[in-house]
Amino acid sequence: MAESAELYRPGLEGIVAGETSVSTVLQDSLAYRGYTIEDLAEHASFEETAYLLLRGELPSASQLAAFRSELDRHRPLNPHVLEVLRRIPAETPGMDVLRTTLSMAAHFDPYRGNDLDALVGRATYALAVVPGIIAARMRLLAGQPLIEPKPGLSHAAQFLYQAFGQMPTAMNEKILNLTFVLYAEHEFNASTFACRVTTSTLSDMYSALVTGIGTLKGPLHGGANEESIKAINQYKSAAEAQAATETQVGGGKLIMGFGHRVYKNGDHRARILEKYVEPLGRERNDMNRVEIYHAIKNVVWERKKIHMNVDYPCGLVYFFMGLPLDVYTPLFVASRISGWAAHAIEQFTNNRLIRPRSRYVGPEIRPYRPVGER
Amino acid sequence: MAESAELYRPGLEGIVAGETSVSTVLQDSLAYRGYTIEDLAEHASFEETAYLLLRGELPSASQLAAFRSELDRHRPLNPHVLEVLRRIPAETPGMDVLRTTLSMAAHFDPYRGNDLDALVGRATYALAVVPGIIAARMRLLAGQPLIEPKPGLSHAAQFLYQAFGQMPTAMNEKILNLTFVLYAEHEFNASTFACRVTTSTLSDMYSALVTGIGTLKGPLHGGANEESIKAINQYKSAAEAQAATETQVGGGKLIMGFGHRVYKNGDHRARILEKYVEPLGRERNDMNRVEIYHAIKNVVWERKKIHMNVDYPCGLVYFFMGLPLDVYTPLFVASRISGWAAHAIEQFTNNRLIRPRSRYVGPEIRPYRPVGER
Repeated sequence: MAESAELYRPGLEGIVAGETSVSTVLQDSLAYRGYTIEDLAEHASFEETAYLLLRGELPSASQLAAFRSELDRHRPLNPHVLEVLRRIPAETPGMDVLRTTLSMAAHFDPYRGNDLDALVGRATYALAVVPGIIAARMRLLAGQPLIEPKPGLSHAAQFLYQAFGQMPTAMNEKILNLTFVLYAEHEFNASTFACRVTTSTLSDMYSALVTGIGTLKGPLHGGANEESIKAINQYKSAAEAQAATETQVGGGKLIMGFGHRVYKNGDHRARILEKYVEPLGRERNDMNRVEIYHAIKNVVWERKKIHMNVDYPCGLVYFFMGLPLDVYTPLFVASRISGWAAHAIEQFTNNRLIRPRSRYVGPEIRPYRPVGER
Repeated sequence: MAESAELYRPGLEGIVAGETSVSTVLQDSLAYRGYTIEDLAEHASFEETAYLLLRGELPSASQLAAFRSELDRHRPLNPHVLEVLRRIPAETPGMDVLRTTLSMAAHFDPYRGNDLDALVGRATYALAVVPGIIAARMRLLAGQPLIEPKPGLSHAAQFLYQAFGQMPTAMNEKILNLTFVLYAEHEFNASTFACRVTTSTLSDMYSALVTGIGTLKGPLHGGANEESIKAINQYKSAAEAQAATETQVGGGKLIMGFGHRVYKNGDHRARILEKYVEPLGRERNDMNRVEIYHAIKNVVWERKKIHMNVDYPCGLVYFFMGLPLDVYTPLFVASRISGWAAHAIEQFTNNRLIRPRSRYVGPEIRPYRPVGER
């Protein structure tokens, strides 16, 4: 093929790969379907936000009630999904568990056809089952009995109730809801873009969502919230954190939870979530960890001029909520399914195969020689 | 973000998204690691081809023997994977079954670490288990007892033996091996590109392969071989096929198994495989179907000047081999895992996050209003 008409853009930096009406990155913020993330973080439940992403408009009271009751209807896990959960070895990473079990749950999906209601229905089914899967896995690993879902709870409260076996505090429900709103959608990030590539062959919704899980898993993406708390937890004091981080950034080490391909002036979601770091630290009587948090952040900023992204405060917030490390990225999934599904629907309804080219840098053409002559 | 420095390329047509040494599309052919597809199709076993893709060089006799014995060692399915297979509803599409069961099998992978041997080991494990999964599913659906793998068989013969419970004919083994060689790798096609996006967050090999399965599933990609035989099988004669296809292409209908984003002058793999259509048709005493095959192909060429791609003859060849429709695309996976894994290894060892931008075409910024006011 003639390369002359082709453009070499490794990593696709600066390439606009398609159109979307789901979200847009603003100068120093983010908007879902025209609503700024500040407005949604201040006012909206995750369920409203998910409905907005999937359907394009915020729901009326009756639409919201119907959506919540559909989520409730799908929350009890299919026994075959639970059986798979029991058979996955204990040491398997939570994101791998979720990849297999959501793929399994898909086989029991009640929706047929590919009209908009069926597509949104599949997204709703996936949204409904994921928190229950994460909570069930958490309790199985801890040797605790599973908790049945309780109809009428919010997405955030449902997970906390099924995970801990008691109703969450208002503060914990509010903060988990906030992280769900902040994590719900983010334009053509790597996992969403991967979902769109999967959908662009006219594959199905669940294949797209499973692709999203496998892609989000990486430490350069969703895995960053787990990595950021691991970094915080390895230090005993802010002074130790500061010294060690200075050495690391001096040696060119990448610090997880910092930097963003898109936000060069800082990730607004991180600033929204950070407001809860100190109140939670005080409530948990663990201000030392808050100081370590600030120490690392300050070094990365002062030495590298790199801002934190949303995964950095999220790691600490989830830690303060008593969540085991292995559920942090799965909880990102419990929210981001809404954005992935919105993009899959958009891609599916106005499709064009996503298929770039590559530049060949391998061996010249060479003749085959039989195995005996090698 | 300033859009001025950005390039709008929906579908990424004409965008070179990265470098590869795995394969390259030639003027009217394809080469894996420098060996032309004609040479490999003529001389190579699939196992040699997979080794070449994964390691970069054709194996010596002892390297090939070691690779084949590693495949044999991994072929018996883990009982938990078999149990999942039994629990998936009968009506579930074969590609969805494979997505779930390969994801499940990954949890029992014996390899640790991320050095080249571990990465190739994971690819070998995935390659080894997939034919057994496809064959077991086929027999479960037919109510037949499962067949244990037989060490020492080729990748192609192993599948046919486990699927049919008897040793394959030399012709069937040869043709299935050929389709595996032809399907093994194809530069930055949609599924391979999706695998690379998944890997680019530094996620794991199995997440990349599961992404590949979900992406290959679509009828615009791997699903085309199933669609092409469905088209052939709906006609009773070449005359009927010709008339119906003329009407369809006149109405602008897309005929699956024709056209290719990259090959504008025809897909060389299709011409290599087509040589076996007539011998197989004669052996099966079904030359009518061969005539229907040619009739559709000729109309699409004469009316639209669009060439067949490799999926078109593959559908008929698999049909003549007595394979059920639902395993055609899964058999594509049984081969393509080698290419996906080679690209995942390449991406992983020289990584750059794949993250494009999007053009926003949604609503203007608007204020949030409480649910009671909507």
